[in-house]
Amino acid sequence: MSESPLLLALDLAGTFAFALNGAITGLRATRLDIVGVLTLGMMTALGGGVLRDTLIDALPPATFRYWPYLVVAAGGSLIAFFLSRPLRRLAPHIELFDAAGLSLFCVTGATKSLQYGLAVAPAVILGAVTGVGGGTIRDVLVRRVPTVLTSGLYAIPALVGAAVAVAAVRAGVYGLPAALGAALACFLIRVAGIRYNLNAPVAPETKNRQ
Amino acid sequence: MSESPLLLALDLAGTFAFALNGAITGLRATRLDIVGVLTLGMMTALGGGVLRDTLIDALPPATFRYWPYLVVAAGGSLIAFFLSRPLRRLAPHIELFDAAGLSLFCVTGATKSLQYGLAVAPAVILGAVTGVGGGTIRDVLVRRVPTVLTSGLYAIPALVGAAVAVAAVRAGVYGLPAALGAALACFLIRVAGIRYNLNAPVAPETKNRQ
Amino acid sequence: MSESPLLLALDLAGTFAFALNGAITGLRATRLDIVGVLTLGMMTALGGGVLRDTLIDALPPATFRYWPYLVVAAGGSLIAFFLSRPLRRLAPHIELFDAAGLSLFCVTGATKSLQYGLAVAPAVILGAVTGVGGGTIRDVLVRRVPTVLTSGLYAIPALVGAAVAVAAVRAGVYGLPAALGAALACFLIRVAGIRYNLNAPVAPETKNRQ
Repeated sequence: MSESPLLLALDLAGTFAFALNGAITGLRATRLDIVGVLTLGMMTALGGGVLRDTLIDALPPATFRYWPYLVVAAGGSLIAFFLSRPLRRLAPHIELFDAAGLSLFCVTGATKSLQYGLAVAPAVILGAVTGVGGGTIRDVLVRRVPTVLTSGLYAIPALVGAAVAVAAVRAGVYGLPAALGAALACFLIRVAGIRYNLNAPVAPETKNRQ
Repeated sequence: MSESPLLLALDLAGTFAFALNGAITGLRATRLDIVGVLTLGMMTALGGGVLRDTLIDALPPATFRYWPYLVVAAGGSLIAFFLSRPLRRLAPHIELFDAAGLSLFCVTGATKSLQYGLAVAPAVILGAVTGVGGGTIRDVLVRRVPTVLTSGLYAIPALVGAAVAVAAVRAGVYGLPAALGAALACFLIRVAGIRYNLNAPVAPETKNRQ
Repeated sequence: MSESPLLLALDLAGTFAFALNGAITGLRATRLDIVGVLTLGMMTALGGGVLRDTLIDALPPATFRYWPYLVVAAGGSLIAFFLSRPLRRLAPHIELFDAAGLSLFCVTGATKSLQYGLAVAPAVILGAVTGVGGGTIRDVLVRRVPTVLTSGLYAIPALVGAAVAVAAVRAGVYGLPAALGAALACFLIRVAGIRYNLNAPVAPETKNRQ
């Protein structure tokens, strides 16, 4: 099965956003040289899609079948590396790149899963897995507890974006506008979560202890 | 190939046990809200089976093809979250849930591997991989050295349970009693290991240093 | 598709080298008993190949289809365990075993990827992924930032070795001498990097801060 142009475009945009995020993470982590930055950027950018394609049995992953993936992932990482000084002002916004990647990947993950025959609920879950996958790999590699565990509004926006995309496909209205709407829904919830430091409820026991 | 009812039942029981264990781990780890607890519970519950199905080429994994997996994994995690106060007394027994998941998954991992054409020895190993997989993912995500490395009696009971199950299949006597017997063998060895803090021998060099 | 004898031989040699490296890492990490050492040795030895075979859709992985993989991985780990005292003098050279595994696996990863239909650039990348995979899994399990991120000359020699192997295949001159030449190119660059503590350039911003 070949990639649709829409899927490819969204996937590459998400790949670019995650490459910037992963590379900047590598620049801020100590002692990463250009190879480390490039490696972390590429793993962050490509990890979610590789996980998705493995789980839906679309092997070898699109990453290794369509050259733009590798080029965009490497290019985004190198841009972050070489422009790290002029882009320094972007560093506080590093989470926005992550949010953009999350938003685009939850949509491509969900719609590609449907295309490969998964049912509605698994497609939504796999969309979220695709969205959070790259950032989780990044966090494990630099030894942070993954954002998906510590941030209340990380998995939820990914599930929302994936659900909107799946609903649009099922309603027969999926296309560029619906895809961008689904991604935007995810992005806005995620950014609101970062901005207002929102979290989901914690368990009663934990609250009492504090 | 469709899942046999016995495989499905054992798999779901193991999924439930690991969901409880993963979610309680998340509750005890700091700052995990309901989404973090649910995510960690589901990854712990579903990780071993997803790994197994990937390695035996049963893709997409059963997790995404049979809805009860996702429901049981989410349900177990939510039960642990909402009943965390009344269940507080269960917390010291958190390792028993892990042991139950280990015991059931080593059996389903080994028998499903045979069903997909693997030879006896690889099926035993893959059974053990299935058993220890979810807990290892859990430990990596919360930044602990995985139990399978630090606890002498974790991989061994999984190998024993898998070997008993494989022997039963090869002898033509596999069924509910044999499956439960194999799981029980694993469970008892694991619990004895926890109870008496048993470990396998360490290397001579290491001993001398102490 | 069956393994060629050359691929199998190189793969097993790399497996043995990584098993020694992983097991010695386990011996030096605290509190690992024989099971932990064996588990870490086997995961280090087999991780890269399992990742490769998953990504090129050669499932189930060769590890579970050809018994010598499991035997060599277990044997290498046990040798490191039982001979840990006489081999103590080898401990400072632990990185050489890693370099040997890296060198052999980047070649087998690249050539097997070509054999399974991947294009030239993805085959080179997948060769490098195969080489660095086992060590990265090892580092994550013992909670170190992976060498591939922190060491400038780890991914690069793997890419060089993979590229030489791919060039030899494309030129129609691939065989034992070309394979060993490609592995040697990787090995020498890696060892020079360790010996002279070479690193790739760091970003301007980072340099200024120091």
